[in-house]
Amino acid sequence: MASNRAKIAIDALGGDNAPEEIVAGAIKAAEELGVEIILVGDRLAIENCLKKHGQSGKLEIVEAEGVVEMHEEPLVGIRRKPKASINVAMNLVKEGRADAVVSAGHSGAAMAAALLRLGRIKGIDRPAIGAVFPTLVGKPVIVLDVGANVDSKPKYLEQFALMGTIYSKYVLGTAEPKVGLLNIGEEPSKGDELALRTHELLTENPAIPFVGNAEGRDVLSGNFDVIVCDGFVGNVLLKFAEAVGEIMLQILKEELPRGIKGKIGTAILKPNLKRIKQRIDHAEHGGGLLFGVNGVCIISHGSSQAPSIFSAIRLAKEAIDNQVLERIQSYSKETITTVES
Amino acid sequence: MASNRAKIAIDALGGDNAPEEIVAGAIKAAEELGVEIILVGDRLAIENCLKKHGQSGKLEIVEAEGVVEMHEEPLVGIRRKPKASINVAMNLVKEGRADAVVSAGHSGAAMAAALLRLGRIKGIDRPAIGAVFPTLVGKPVIVLDVGANVDSKPKYLEQFALMGTIYSKYVLGTAEPKVGLLNIGEEPSKGDELALRTHELLTENPAIPFVGNAEGRDVLSGNFDVIVCDGFVGNVLLKFAEAVGEIMLQILKEELPRGIKGKIGTAILKPNLKRIKQRIDHAEHGGGLLFGVNGVCIISHGSSQAPSIFSAIRLAKEAIDNQVLERIQSYSKETITTVES
Repeated sequence: MASNRAKIAIDALGGDNAPEEIVAGAIKAAEELGVEIILVGDRLAIENCLKKHGQSGKLEIVEAEGVVEMHEEPLVGIRRKPKASINVAMNLVKEGRADAVVSAGHSGAAMAAALLRLGRIKGIDRPAIGAVFPTLVGKPVIVLDVGANVDSKPKYLEQFALMGTIYSKYVLGTAEPKVGLLNIGEEPSKGDELALRTHELLTENPAIPFVGNAEGRDVLSGNFDVIVCDGFVGNVLLKFAEAVGEIMLQILKEELPRGIKGKIGTAILKPNLKRIKQRIDHAEHGGGLLFGVNGVCIISHGSSQAPSIFSAIRLAKEAIDNQVLERIQSYSKETITTVES
Repeated sequence: MASNRAKIAIDALGGDNAPEEIVAGAIKAAEELGVEIILVGDRLAIENCLKKHGQSGKLEIVEAEGVVEMHEEPLVGIRRKPKASINVAMNLVKEGRADAVVSAGHSGAAMAAALLRLGRIKGIDRPAIGAVFPTLVGKPVIVLDVGANVDSKPKYLEQFALMGTIYSKYVLGTAEPKVGLLNIGEEPSKGDELALRTHELLTENPAIPFVGNAEGRDVLSGNFDVIVCDGFVGNVLLKFAEAVGEIMLQILKEELPRGIKGKIGTAILKPNLKRIKQRIDHAEHGGGLLFGVNGVCIISHGSSQAPSIFSAIRLAKEAIDNQVLERIQSYSKETITTVES
């Protein structure tokens, strides 16, 4: 792997700001990250975007037609539109022509396309979307699942814990990842049916460095490196966290420049405020990694602009360079419990 | 009701900072809110606190012995310790000697004591804890349940929606409350089994002003006045929100005074930063209201200090003055569906 540059297929039709912002983010990534980019979408539109940036002809383009719309049932859309950009991009991975897919389109469709074209990893019952949050102490925490599944079974969460541990170790560089189970209390006796039964599985599995329950307040504390949960609560949490960041920035914008002193003080603090914005802004984080399918897929926010796409491509590159997929593929075979639970 | 001042029983043994902070908050409330306070706990310790504030003998004290400890199973603790402060406080409400209870002790024990001593409101299957959040547009939103129940049935959420609507209307002053169902997508087809079935119930109940699904990002948007959810996700959300506020304040503290300019700018902005702290700080919000039992109970944070206890007492007073309990009692009989679901 080290000798080859990571090849990343970008869905240039998916997302609210396609293709302009997608292509802009991809150009930056090609320049700065040393990755090979394949832009999948409308050749003419992509060419126009490349031209604007003086990059005409410099990035590979693979033609695709159409996207799965937000209102479409994912699997139906994926089956009915074989030439949709997300299908074409996944096929590139399947055929070995790309190492990863980045898409800001319909996330359900991306998941369905990944499942259909790449398939699940042996030993993994359900894929999960993992989102990396920055914590109070600086190091990141990965939370999974943030929306791939609802009504999860305990064994799914056990599998999420294993995949998250590998990611934390090999991509985030955590020497000894601490795994937490998202719950409503610290004690093992707390929680809903799913949490209670998952707590047992995590405790019993020697391959999982489980340290106990993580409450809502612990998510960003840095006390945990991996937090597992059902996709319902994870998705609510992710979207809430994104919105809270925006709200905090809005409160700063409203309150800081109040009065003459406020305006002076705010002007003086401009560089520091920029750092604050960077720490809070979710656009810096790029997207979620789809775990459990036979390929590296990054699912970005529908509203992604160039910086988010750049971050998403960096996420993909990191996953490729650190062989997350291969490690999960070999690891899961040995360590996933096979008991039905 | 208008002729009598609200009488509020305060658990002066519950919480990390009992009795000092509890008593301090109660004194402030007695002075500023025009409520009658009954302090329930260790007479000598309470007297000492009152003395410190020059209030010796000025507030009523009712003797109690011990608390249900955090590690105790709530119902067991409540039964084994009839003289525990939370039991004595609830009895005051039961006997008509107080209108409400405020406790920062073991929240499970408060709920168990309320259920055991006051009982459930007819037509309500499960109590719910409601938490009021400030929204981006200024008006508050009430989210329930934030931790009384896990593995809720759809009909519980339907009942939460009714109780929340009454609270929003009569306490928060929302002319036409908009009820949302916490979910992972806007479409009715989105969500887990609970959300799907609850969506149907809420749609069909003409007494509920249901406007649709609320995603995580919508919680603080101000687009909804009441948001219903199972206590698992609600509790995770509440604790996450509280922690995020603290994290944001910490980020400001770390980043704003960086460098000489940073220190100057921060000094100039001091009054504006205080306003920001107030808008973000959860201590301003007081606690959760326990809905569905025959009494007004406010469950405060275990870490509550005097300002939180003051806010909690204000919450209790507002609920009493606006007859939330009586309205729910009469309303629920007529409008709750009785079908098993």
